[in-house]
Amino acid sequence: MPGEFSLIDWIRQQTLASPAVPVGIGDDAALLMITPGEELLVTTDMLMDGRHFRVSETAPELIGRKAMAVNLSDIAAMAGRPLAAFVSWALPRSGGRALAEGLFHGLHQMAQEYGVSIAGGDTNSWDGPLVINVTLIGETVQGRRVLRSAAQPGDQIYVTGPLGGSLTHRHLTFTPRLQAARELAQRVDLHAMLDLSDGVASDLRHILRASDVGATLIAEQIPVHSDVSPKLTAPLRIQHALTDGEDFELLFTAPAISPEVLIQLRDLSVDCYSIGTIRSAPGCTLRLGGQEGPLPVGGWEHSID
Amino acid sequence: MPGEFSLIDWIRQQTLASPAVPVGIGDDAALLMITPGEELLVTTDMLMDGRHFRVSETAPELIGRKAMAVNLSDIAAMAGRPLAAFVSWALPRSGGRALAEGLFHGLHQMAQEYGVSIAGGDTNSWDGPLVINVTLIGETVQGRRVLRSAAQPGDQIYVTGPLGGSLTHRHLTFTPRLQAARELAQRVDLHAMLDLSDGVASDLRHILRASDVGATLIAEQIPVHSDVSPKLTAPLRIQHALTDGEDFELLFTAPAISPEVLIQLRDLSVDCYSIGTIRSAPGCTLRLGGQEGPLPVGGWEHSID
Repeated sequence: MPGEFSLIDWIRQQTLASPAVPVGIGDDAALLMITPGEELLVTTDMLMDGRHFRVSETAPELIGRKAMAVNLSDIAAMAGRPLAAFVSWALPRSGGRALAEGLFHGLHQMAQEYGVSIAGGDTNSWDGPLVINVTLIGETVQGRRVLRSAAQPGDQIYVTGPLGGSLTHRHLTFTPRLQAARELAQRVDLHAMLDLSDGVASDLRHILRASDVGATLIAEQIPVHSDVSPKLTAPLRIQHALTDGEDFELLFTAPAISPEVLIQLRDLSVDCYSIGTIRSAPGCTLRLGGQEGPLPVGGWEHSID
Repeated sequence: MPGEFSLIDWIRQQTLASPAVPVGIGDDAALLMITPGEELLVTTDMLMDGRHFRVSETAPELIGRKAMAVNLSDIAAMAGRPLAAFVSWALPRSGGRALAEGLFHGLHQMAQEYGVSIAGGDTNSWDGPLVINVTLIGETVQGRRVLRSAAQPGDQIYVTGPLGGSLTHRHLTFTPRLQAARELAQRVDLHAMLDLSDGVASDLRHILRASDVGATLIAEQIPVHSDVSPKLTAPLRIQHALTDGEDFELLFTAPAISPEVLIQLRDLSVDCYSIGTIRSAPGCTLRLGGQEGPLPVGGWEHSID
């Protein structure tokens, strides 16, 4: 009978030993070693069929890829180094094995690309829709903490790429900005940073709140992704860029970066767009065509009643 | 609008700072510090409505308790010290907030009892049934690794309590054997260990396979829990004890423990029942009323086709 244990055996055969993971899949817990002097980073994301992807319309490899990538993006937002991933899933009872293999291929390929071991997890089947949870363990690099709470008045606000329209396809294929974060940590006086999951209009507020500051965004400076229809009016395109979500670009604050450093970063494939400034007065405003008004939240917040 | 962020705020207010968790809920990843010289332990378990509990019949506090306890049990099986938990959930859209608060109370109470910080997670809502995933981070104690692969021919096989009948209620209220594991690690030459989730008949095979050994169980020595109906025949009661699952007792192998140490352990509330022996010949047999035959697997394996 092909069952849970047979699937786990198959997965074990695909995974490689790693110095950071002396004991991986197959015991009650995995054993991990982190670099002495570094702190541990832990992040977790749950993705559900119908909410973050549609099994009926999406290759399982892309779903697996996304489940790993959203967690890699969180480690990037801490300027960290990812080490090991733990994958739990609730598989639909019918067709679950083939689905699991496709998901795993996507997870594994993404993991390998970023030097991550898949070191454990939990396999279940049920009559419900696919649910997949990834917990990613990483470590700091040179003991550096890059938090949301370190924005300071006078900082510029930057994003690492154009925004909006991700849900047409890019949310499945985006590049987690680990390399960009590493370069930024080395070359820029990074203050606060996060990765954009709900959209600037929503996510920026996490930094403002944690840092007890406010912000002014300049509409004309917001880079709008080509995935946003060029047929829309400029204000509508900006609204998409600010609220569509799932961009998974980094948003960070720092003292203004010199043109020389911006060019160096661009040569390293890290495009930084300044989109506004941090101020001491609370709140968040948008300057659009010479007018300044409150920035609508717009970014979707999951409704829970 | 009471939504995701309001729920997360409420959760943050309940959680306490901990020296092991300098940055917990509220950033892209949590920052953790483990004791220098120890290795990291990571385990994860996903529980789904209808499979591991029924929301319609169970207090949310007990569901939350179980979600934390099954992970604590895995850290116990490594003789480790639990540190920080990460909770992801897919909440039903209707009534999700009240459910989440009940779940959290159960999670949090169990976490506090064992010195664990709830340091992060992921909150989602959807139209599907409740899914809750907990990842628990722990560390080794005095650098000691207690794995499934260390059983040796001649070892006795022990369990830390009576087995069977857990699904009537005990699976929601069991005590994870962290303290017992700690005492055993100090007083016994522990070889292999795991926690019983699918039942001895299934779980013992993980040790046999990882250690490349076989085993003989003695039916008369299997401690049968009072949750198993006393009206059943003795062989049926033993079958329940071996295959019901969700006992969450420790099963371990070690050279025979002296009566003096067994009494010491009992004084520390660690009851050890010898249920058989490890042998070099592969396979697993059950000796029942003078006869020895192959042990049926019996423990349920989730079917995935």
